Amino acid sequence: MALPARVEIHEEGPREGFQIERPGFSIADRASLVEALADAGLRHIQVASFVNPKRVPQMADAAELFAAIRKRPGVRYTGLWLNEQGFERASATAPVDLTGTLFFYASDAFSRQNNGKGMRELAESQRGWVRRYREHGLQIESAYVMTAFGCNYEGEISEERLAEALRFIAALQREESFRLPALYLADTVGHANPRSVRRRIDLAREILPHARIGLHLHDTRGLGMANAFAALEMGVDLFDASVAGLGGCPFCGSEHGGAAGNICTEDLVFLCEQLGIETGLDLPKLLDAARLAERIIGRRLEGKLMHSGLPLTVREGVTA
Amino acid sequence: MALPARVEIHEEGPREGFQIERPGFSIADRASLVEALADAGLRHIQVASFVNPKRVPQMADAAELFAAIRKRPGVRYTGLWLNEQGFERASATAPVDLTGTLFFYASDAFSRQNNGKGMRELAESQRGWVRRYREHGLQIESAYVMTAFGCNYEGEISEERLAEALRFIAALQREESFRLPALYLADTVGHANPRSVRRRIDLAREILPHARIGLHLHDTRGLGMANAFAALEMGVDLFDASVAGLGGCPFCGSEHGGAAGNICTEDLVFLCEQLGIETGLDLPKLLDAARLAERIIGRRLEGKLMHSGLPLTVREGVTA
Repeated sequence: MALPARVEIHEEGPREGFQIERPGFSIADRASLVEALADAGLRHIQVASFVNPKRVPQMADAAELFAAIRKRPGVRYTGLWLNEQGFERASATAPVDLTGTLFFYASDAFSRQNNGKGMRELAESQRGWVRRYREHGLQIESAYVMTAFGCNYEGEISEERLAEALRFIAALQREESFRLPALYLADTVGHANPRSVRRRIDLAREILPHARIGLHLHDTRGLGMANAFAALEMGVDLFDASVAGLGGCPFCGSEHGGAAGNICTEDLVFLCEQLGIETGLDLPKLLDAARLAERIIGRRLEGKLMHSGLPLTVREGVTA
Repeated sequence: MALPARVEIHEEGPREGFQIERPGFSIADRASLVEALADAGLRHIQVASFVNPKRVPQMADAAELFAAIRKRPGVRYTGLWLNEQGFERASATAPVDLTGTLFFYASDAFSRQNNGKGMRELAESQRGWVRRYREHGLQIESAYVMTAFGCNYEGEISEERLAEALRFIAALQREESFRLPALYLADTVGHANPRSVRRRIDLAREILPHARIGLHLHDTRGLGMANAFAALEMGVDLFDASVAGLGGCPFCGSEHGGAAGNICTEDLVFLCEQLGIETGLDLPKLLDAARLAERIIGRRLEGKLMHSGLPLTVREGVTA
C-alpha cells in the first residue's frame, strides 16, 4: 500500500510527560507548552488526565491547567480518565474537549494490573461507557487496544488475543449500534516491531474494516520510528506522539521498561516531511516547543531533531 | 526484495565514541570495552584511529590501546587512518588488523573541509591508496562514499553527485584491475530518510553491480532505525553501528549536528532478531557491553534497549 498523502498527529506530551515527572511543575509553564504546541499547528492536544490525585499527584491540578490555557480556535484540548469519577471531573471542567474514547486490552495481566479487571471484564465495562458518552451527547470517536503487541507481564501478546479484543469491539458496535471511526493499536510498553506492526494492522483492518487505523507507539526499545515507517507504508495516517519524546524516565530501571515515552512528535513530523507526507505542522515552531519542554523539565530529553537541528536545504552555488 | 537471512555488523563504538569525548579515558577501560564487544560476538571492531594527535588527542594512545587488548581468535581489531603517516603508524602497530579501505565523498564542500581536497581530487588520490595497499599485500576490501545523502555544508546531495562518485569507483576498478567486495553508503551527518536510502541503494547496485552494499548510518535526526529497516527490506546485510549509540555528543549544539553517533548496535541487533534475521551476536552480552560503555563514559548514552531491557518472552500459563 502507498504512503498516505497526509497524516494526523495527536499530541500526548503534556499528559504523558508531566505524569511521570516529579510533581510541582507550574501551571504557567505547562500552559505555555500547550500553547506552543497549538501554535505549531497541533489540533488535538492531550493536556492532562483526571485520575486519582492520591496516586498521580502530578495531575491533581488538571482543572486549573485547562483553565489557564489561552485557547486557539480549532484546537481540541483533551483529557484522559479511567473511571466515572474522572469523567465527571473532566465534564465539570468547562474547557475540556470531551472525547468518546473506549479502552480495551489485549493483555489480561496488564489489564488486571492497571484496572483491577481482566481484559474481558474490562471490555464488557466499555459497554457502559458507550451508553454514558451517549447520555452526555458525545459520539464514540475512537477505541484503543492497549498492549496490542505485548506487555511486561505476559511478553508478546498473540495475534489471536489481539483478534479476540478486536472481535469484541466489532460485536459491541453491532450490539450498541454505532460505527467506530478510529481504532488505535497501542504499543503501550514497546513490544512492536515493523513486521508485527504490519501484520496487526492487517488484522485490525480485516476485523474492523470501517475503522481508520491509528498507532500509539512508544520508543521503549529503539524501534519506534521504524515501526512508524512500517505503518506509514501501510497507509496509516493517524498517530499519537509526544513532543521531545516526553514521557520517558531516565531514572526508571529496566524493570520499568514501560516508562519510555511515545515516539517523538517532531522526529515523526520530520520523517513524514522527508517522505513527502503532509502533516499540517510547522516544524521549526514544533522544535521551539520541544526545546521549551526541555527547559521546563530541566534535563536533556529524548528527541533527536531538537538537538541536531533541521538539515540545510541545498545551497545554490556550493555544488561542485 | 526480501529481508536478508543474516546480517554482518561492524562495531565502530570504541573509535567513534572516544574520539568525541574528552581525552583521558584509561587504556584499561577502553580495552575492556573492546573485549566485551568481542565476547558478545562482534567479529570486526574498529578500535581507534591513527590521526594527528595534536588535532585528536583522544587517539594519541592508539598503539598502546591495541597492545593492551586481550585478543580473541577470529576477531578483526581494525583502525582508521586518513593519510600516509597514519597508515604507517597503524602498520607499525603490530596487533592492528589492517584493512584495505578507500574513501570517497559525494559532497565537495565536506571533502574540502575534512581533507583539504575537493571530492574529485580526493577520489583521484584513492588510486595511490589502491597501489599502497597492494604494496603492503592488502586486498581492497571496501570503499566508503561519505556524505552519500547530504552534509552540513551543502544540504542534500543530489543523486547525480552520488552517481558521479560511484562511477569514479567503477572506473577505478577497471583501471586498477580490482573488484570491490563492499561499497558503503555513509550517512555521515544524518541526512538519509527511508526513501533516499532505497533509491541510493538501487543506484549503487546499478553502478557497482558486483559490490555488496553496506550502510554506515548516523542517528542524527531520529531516522536511523527507520533507515536501517528500509535497507534491510532491500536485502542489505552489512552495517556499521556503535554500541550504546556511542559517538553522540550532548554538549554539541545544532551547528554540530554531525556529532550524533552511529545507529546503536544492540538496538539494530534487536530489530534484526525481531525480524527473524540472524546476527551471530549474543544480545544480553551486547547489552552488558553497552552498560559498560555507559559506566566508562559516565553519563547516560543514547541506546534504548540498554535502558529498557529485553522484553519478556511469553510466559506460559499467564494467558487468559
